[in-house]
Amino acid sequence: MTTPRYIAVDWGTSSFRLWLIGSDGSVLNESRSDEGMTTAAKTGFAEVLARHLATVEAPADIPVIVCGMAGAKQGWVEAGYVDVPTSLSAILTGAVPVPGQSRDIRILPGLAQRDRASPDVIRGEETQLLGALGADSTGAQAVCMPGTHSKWVHVQDGEVIGFSTFMTGELFDAITKHTILSHAVAGAEQSPADNSAFKASVSTAFRQPQMATNLLFTARSGQLLHGMTASAAQARISGTLIGLEISGALADAANDTPIALVASGRLQKLYETAFKALSLNATTIDADTAVLAGLSAAANAIWPN
Amino acid sequence: MTTPRYIAVDWGTSSFRLWLIGSDGSVLNESRSDEGMTTAAKTGFAEVLARHLATVEAPADIPVIVCGMAGAKQGWVEAGYVDVPTSLSAILTGAVPVPGQSRDIRILPGLAQRDRASPDVIRGEETQLLGALGADSTGAQAVCMPGTHSKWVHVQDGEVIGFSTFMTGELFDAITKHTILSHAVAGAEQSPADNSAFKASVSTAFRQPQMATNLLFTARSGQLLHGMTASAAQARISGTLIGLEISGALADAANDTPIALVASGRLQKLYETAFKALSLNATTIDADTAVLAGLSAAANAIWPN
Repeated sequence: MTTPRYIAVDWGTSSFRLWLIGSDGSVLNESRSDEGMTTAAKTGFAEVLARHLATVEAPADIPVIVCGMAGAKQGWVEAGYVDVPTSLSAILTGAVPVPGQSRDIRILPGLAQRDRASPDVIRGEETQLLGALGADSTGAQAVCMPGTHSKWVHVQDGEVIGFSTFMTGELFDAITKHTILSHAVAGAEQSPADNSAFKASVSTAFRQPQMATNLLFTARSGQLLHGMTASAAQARISGTLIGLEISGALADAANDTPIALVASGRLQKLYETAFKALSLNATTIDADTAVLAGLSAAANAIWPN
Repeated sequence: MTTPRYIAVDWGTSSFRLWLIGSDGSVLNESRSDEGMTTAAKTGFAEVLARHLATVEAPADIPVIVCGMAGAKQGWVEAGYVDVPTSLSAILTGAVPVPGQSRDIRILPGLAQRDRASPDVIRGEETQLLGALGADSTGAQAVCMPGTHSKWVHVQDGEVIGFSTFMTGELFDAITKHTILSHAVAGAEQSPADNSAFKASVSTAFRQPQMATNLLFTARSGQLLHGMTASAAQARISGTLIGLEISGALADAANDTPIALVASGRLQKLYETAFKALSLNATTIDADTAVLAGLSAAANAIWPN
C-alpha cells in the first residue's frame, strides 16, 4: 500500500489547490478553494494551508512544495525569480523555504526576463511548463498557457529562451463589462468557441493585428447595421483578442515550430478552435495534469527517495 | 450690425454645445453643458434645447441645425445614415426636420459603411469633417478625429471612400481603471504626451501591432523589474493604443497620403506628438472650429440667404 510522501500546492492569485501525493506518485486526496493569494494575504497563509492539510489528513512529518503567487512579493514568502535564458530544471533548485514552520515547506521561484525592451514575469506557469515538457525536452517549442494573462514561452532543448505575457483574458473581461461593447454582448448565450464568428475573427486579427481595436468596434457596428447577435458579438471580441495574441506570440517563431497548448476546460476548447482556424497544429496538454507533474518533479528533486 | 440668423448645435453622447450665429457668420453667443444624449434622453431633448436657447437669448423665428447623437436611434429624432462612398456634400441634403416644433429644427445624418467585412458608423464627426475639409477638397486625405472612439476617414476629391473606428480612448479608460494596470498608473502625474515613454511606445506599437496586448503588460512588468514610474506606465499604455491605431488606420494608405488631424486640447497634443514620433506630417485643424464650420455650411445650404 502506498503511503503519503509529500503535499503539492498550486497557490494562484484567486485559487488554491492542494494534493496529497503517495510514495508511488499517485494522488491520495485533494482539496480546493478560492483562498488564493488575495484572500490568504488577509486571512493568513499558514492558516489557509493548515486547514487544507487537515482536510486531506496529511501526516505531520511530510513536506510541502508550493508554486504560484504565494511566492510573490505580496505573497507568503518571496521566492524571487530565475532569470531567462535558463534551463527548465533551474527552478527546481531555486525553491525557498518558509521559515518558522513545523514542517518543511518550499515555494518555487518564478521566471524573469529582464531586458529593457520586453520585461516580463511568470509565476506559477513555470511549474506547469516543467510538468508539461519535462526537464529534458528537445528541439524548439512554443508553449501557450492561456488565461487572464496568457503566457507564451519559447523553449529550445530544455532551455527557456524567452517568453511574453498577453493580457487577453483580462482585456476580454474589461471590454465586455466596462465599454460600450457591454451592450453588444448582453444576453450572449453561446460559448465563443461554438460561434462561427469566432474562427473568422481569429483569422482576421491574426492577419491584420493592426486593426484590432477597429475589429472590436465592429461587434457594435455589426449589430447596428447587420443585426449581429449578442453571441456573435461576444465571439468577435474573444476571437479578435485571441487572434491578436497568437499573431504576436508567433511573429518571431519559425513556421514549423511545434506548439504545445497547456490548458483545461473552456480555454482549452477556445484555443484549440483558434489554432484550427489558423491551420496551426497544436498538441494539448491538460493544465491540471501539467502543474501537478511539475510540482512532483520539484518534490522528487528536493526530497529524493 | 449683424443680426442673429441661425443656431448651431453639436449634440454628442455626453456633451451639448450651442452657438448663436449672426448674419455675417460670426458667433454672437454660446452655451455649453454636459446634457448630452444620455442625459437628454431622460430629461427631454426639447426641454434641454429650449433652456440653452433662452440662455443665448435666441430670437423665436431663427432655425436650428443639429449634428451628433441627437440623431441616433436612441436620440431625439432618428436622422439615419448616408452610405459611403458618398460626396461630403450629401450630408447637407440629408437633414431631418424635428416634427411638432415652433421653429425649424433639422438634424444632420451620420455616415454608414455597410459592407459585411468592415461595418462602421459615424455620427457627428461627418460634420466636423465637412467643416475641416470643405465640400470641395481635392486629392487623397486621411483625416484623424481622435476621441473615445477615434474615427479615421479616407477622402478622395471630396468623396468619402471609407472610414474606420478605433476604440482607443475607451480602451485607455477601461484598461487604466478596470485591469491590473490600474495599480501601475496609480499616482501618474505627467500627461502621457510629456513622457518619453509615450513616443517610444507609439513607435513600437506602430511597428509591432501584433504585440499590443503584450506591450500593455510591460507597463506592469517594467515596474516590477525596472522601477518604471506610474507616469511612464500611463504613457506606455496611451502610446501603445495610439501607435496601434495609427498603424491600422494607415495600413492601406499610400505612403505620401496627407494626414489631417482634427482635434483640440489634450488629444491634439497627444496625436501631434505621436505623428512626430513616427515622422509623419499631419496638418492640425481645431475640432471646435471644424464642427462649427460644418454646421454653418449645412445651415447656409439649407437656409440660403
